[in-house]
Amino acid sequence: MITAIVLVKTSVDRIPEIAEQIAALESVTEVYSVTGGWDLIAIVRVRAHEELADVIPGQVNKVPGVEHTETHVAFRTYSTHDLDAAFAIGLDD
Amino acid sequence: MITAIVLVKTSVDRIPEIAEQIAALESVTEVYSVTGGWDLIAIVRVRAHEELADVIPGQVNKVPGVEHTETHVAFRTYSTHDLDAAFAIGLDD
Amino acid sequence: MITAIVLVKTSVDRIPEIAEQIAALESVTEVYSVTGGWDLIAIVRVRAHEELADVIPGQVNKVPGVEHTETHVAFRTYSTHDLDAAFAIGLDD
Amino acid sequence: MITAIVLVKTSVDRIPEIAEQIAALESVTEVYSVTGGWDLIAIVRVRAHEELADVIPGQVNKVPGVEHTETHVAFRTYSTHDLDAAFAIGLDD
Amino acid sequence: MITAIVLVKTSVDRIPEIAEQIAALESVTEVYSVTGGWDLIAIVRVRAHEELADVIPGQVNKVPGVEHTETHVAFRTYSTHDLDAAFAIGLDD
Amino acid sequence: MITAIVLVKTSVDRIPEIAEQIAALESVTEVYSVTGGWDLIAIVRVRAHEELADVIPGQVNKVPGVEHTETHVAFRTYSTHDLDAAFAIGLDD
Amino acid sequence: MITAIVLVKTSVDRIPEIAEQIAALESVTEVYSVTGGWDLIAIVRVRAHEELADVIPGQVNKVPGVEHTETHVAFRTYSTHDLDAAFAIGLDD
Amino acid sequence: MITAIVLVKTSVDRIPEIAEQIAALESVTEVYSVTGGWDLIAIVRVRAHEELADVIPGQVNKVPGVEHTETHVAFRTYSTHDLDAAFAIGLDD
Amino acid sequence: MITAIVLVKTSVDRIPEIAEQIAALESVTEVYSVTGGWDLIAIVRVRAHEELADVIPGQVNKVPGVEHTETHVAFRTYSTHDLDAAFAIGLDD
Amino acid sequence: MITAIVLVKTSVDRIPEIAEQIAALESVTEVYSVTGGWDLIAIVRVRAHEELADVIPGQVNKVPGVEHTETHVAFRTYSTHDLDAAFAIGLDD
Repeated sequence: MITAIVLVKTSVDRIPEIAEQIAALESVTEVYSVTGGWDLIAIVRVRAHEELADVIPGQVNKVPGVEHTETHVAFRTYSTHDLDAAFAIGLDD
Repeated sequence: MITAIVLVKTSVDRIPEIAEQIAALESVTEVYSVTGGWDLIAIVRVRAHEELADVIPGQVNKVPGVEHTETHVAFRTYSTHDLDAAFAIGLDD
Repeated sequence: MITAIVLVKTSVDRIPEIAEQIAALESVTEVYSVTGGWDLIAIVRVRAHEELADVIPGQVNKVPGVEHTETHVAFRTYSTHDLDAAFAIGLDD
Repeated sequence: MITAIVLVKTSVDRIPEIAEQIAALESVTEVYSVTGGWDLIAIVRVRAHEELADVIPGQVNKVPGVEHTETHVAFRTYSTHDLDAAFAIGLDD
Repeated sequence: MITAIVLVKTSVDRIPEIAEQIAALESVTEVYSVTGGWDLIAIVRVRAHEELADVIPGQVNKVPGVEHTETHVAFRTYSTHDLDAAFAIGLDD
Repeated sequence: MITAIVLVKTSVDRIPEIAEQIAALESVTEVYSVTGGWDLIAIVRVRAHEELADVIPGQVNKVPGVEHTETHVAFRTYSTHDLDAAFAIGLDD
Repeated sequence: MITAIVLVKTSVDRIPEIAEQIAALESVTEVYSVTGGWDLIAIVRVRAHEELADVIPGQVNKVPGVEHTETHVAFRTYSTHDLDAAFAIGLDD
Repeated sequence: MITAIVLVKTSVDRIPEIAEQIAALESVTEVYSVTGGWDLIAIVRVRAHEELADVIPGQVNKVPGVEHTETHVAFRTYSTHDLDAAFAIGLDD
Repeated sequence: MITAIVLVKTSVDRIPEIAEQIAALESVTEVYSVTGGWDLIAIVRVRAHEELADVIPGQVNKVPGVEHTETHVAFRTYSTHDLDAAFAIGLDD
Repeated sequence: MITAIVLVKTSVDRIPEIAEQIAALESVTEVYSVTGGWDLIAIVRVRAHEELADVIPGQVNKVPGVEHTETHVAFRTYSTHDLDAAFAIGLDD
């Protein structure tokens, strides 16, 4: 599983609506509306590196009201939780 | 459950070691070593707002080699996954 | 009581008017028009973390003329004053 | 009453200790340890503009571990609360 | 006398015209068109802190063509010149 | 008369002492300790462009505790005050 | 062979289309859509310094949807691969 | 001779045209279209400080397509070349 | 093949030496010493996402004299050249 | 002739000395100590692109007291002066 953390700036007055649209995208497991200089932080989890292009420049960036995104791809994940199971990625779907 | 996303800058040459130390902290569910201008992104999940102070300025910031952190607390979470169950927070422990 | 400090940039020529509108919002205890790179600093005080989403992305950001906000949520408050009493939060209303 | 909001960067591993020292200074009514790019936000309330120099460059900046401060002085305060009474400033002391 | 230094960005092609308008405002003693990342630097000198709000957000920011201002209020003035006399502030007018 | 506005960052804990040293330099007419991202703002007034090099890189920058300076030279001055007389520059000395 | 790395910001919602247009330009050997604060990174390889002006301000910057570019020209190339052969530059065309 | 180096941002797609217009201005001895975060760097050489205001805010900034300029005035010139002769400034015209 | 572009800041006086060390690392196909705000740009090409962690935080960041790196991973590559063949990646080794 | 403009930050208290050392380097035709956020601006003029690596990372960056440099290479020069003659480059030496 490859994880990308996407920091998102949106139209200042439509944050909740845009959050819902991004959260509805396949491969987006969580969207947080957050304090600080960014409006939203989306977590994208895919099985193969090649899928990132479809999800982030292909879909997240095209949601109306998204003004700027900055993606940080995980080199490696350190966790005591079973994230693959939690997000049902890599399973038989 | 309250979620905080903590962006972390570390000593440039000790990223993997520091990631492991942060991931071992209670309430830190995931740490990602990432591409881009930050070195690590840690996800902190607690039951009450008051616990954030213990975890982030109290513990994450005190890990040796951590040089700067910037925390974004989630106002709200948008997800189609059951994150409470996934991270066993708010359950009977 | 959870406190959030919201730094606000507004239309350069309508600062006093916007300050009044934000100050009239429930849970906003003070708004300061300030020197420096920000135009306004608003203090939001709520009883539960969940209310922050309603107040800040839900209301402050939607005031016309607000161009950008950056919220800093307090981990902890250090004060020799009784802020709960001062702002009548957590009382029987 | 003149209010100044002081954003503070501190040594990353001594935030709680420094917060307590600043909160103990006269004229500092509140110190918040906060999420985001700053470590602390202190609220300074004085009766006369001249006192700001004594409190901020004179005292806050000299607390050991304070690395950088950025002060925003309020032009004007918009509030439905009686801040003068709350902070007992301008009264008979 | 309270002094504020106001850094101003303006429409790139109307700097001299805007400088003249700001210099004509009462309490603005000098305006400099300057090299570097700012277009103008205005010096505001008032007798009482309360007047700053009228002059800066109230008047300077409302001059057409002003795009952004950043005000630095003086904590204290160090000078071997008699600035009060020079700018006739605090005298019997 | 040529005017330069020098923004100065200093050691955080020695601002008043450094301000006094800069104010004592010839050609420095005023030094302000200020709110915001800079610590001091010095005003330098000389008769000829050539003198700026002696005063700013030659003297201000060499005051111990000065960490960074950013100079903005005035292209032109807009003022209803007689600044030459106020600062006795260009007179018979 | 002279190499220039061109960092590109584009309209947020048209990254794939713009990447294809830039990649079709002569002297552009590769375009990468990338994570992080930039949208595209283009590699330009020419035989003579003079050609850079034709390719970058002359062509890349004029592709519709390109909003900002920042070019880094290589002083020197360190590689264990035969880049001249790989990109057929300096050969008999 | 007083030298000013003017860093210029322009409309991304009209750099060569704007460069020619600026280079045609009197007192502008050279304009370079450049790599990096700026589009053009213009060198202005005048005999008296007072002329800078006419050339830079007065003319360079008013060339259509110029979006932002940042001027660095030379305190002093260090050179083994005879720049006065090279640029025929201060001679008998 | 997955490509990562690594922007590198180094000790200002040892750029050529550090470039050679990074270029000697396996999976680093090219290193460019460059103009602009970065010192080096390294191109890393690996077969699997998992290898990026070994190469970049694992090796590039640990080269002595490397002070900061910012990695941009390619979502997708647009090229009219056969980069797999050029860099012999994915072939029979 | 290829021209590079090198922006230089130096030790704050040794600007004049460092300027002289850089100006003495072959291929450096002028060094200006300047107002604004940079300390020095050096102009490097060489006959071939390959020489830039020897001069800038090879020599300018190694002058003691140079802390950071940012080089902008000219794509093209727009001038009504004969710069080749002025700087005797490309002539019979």
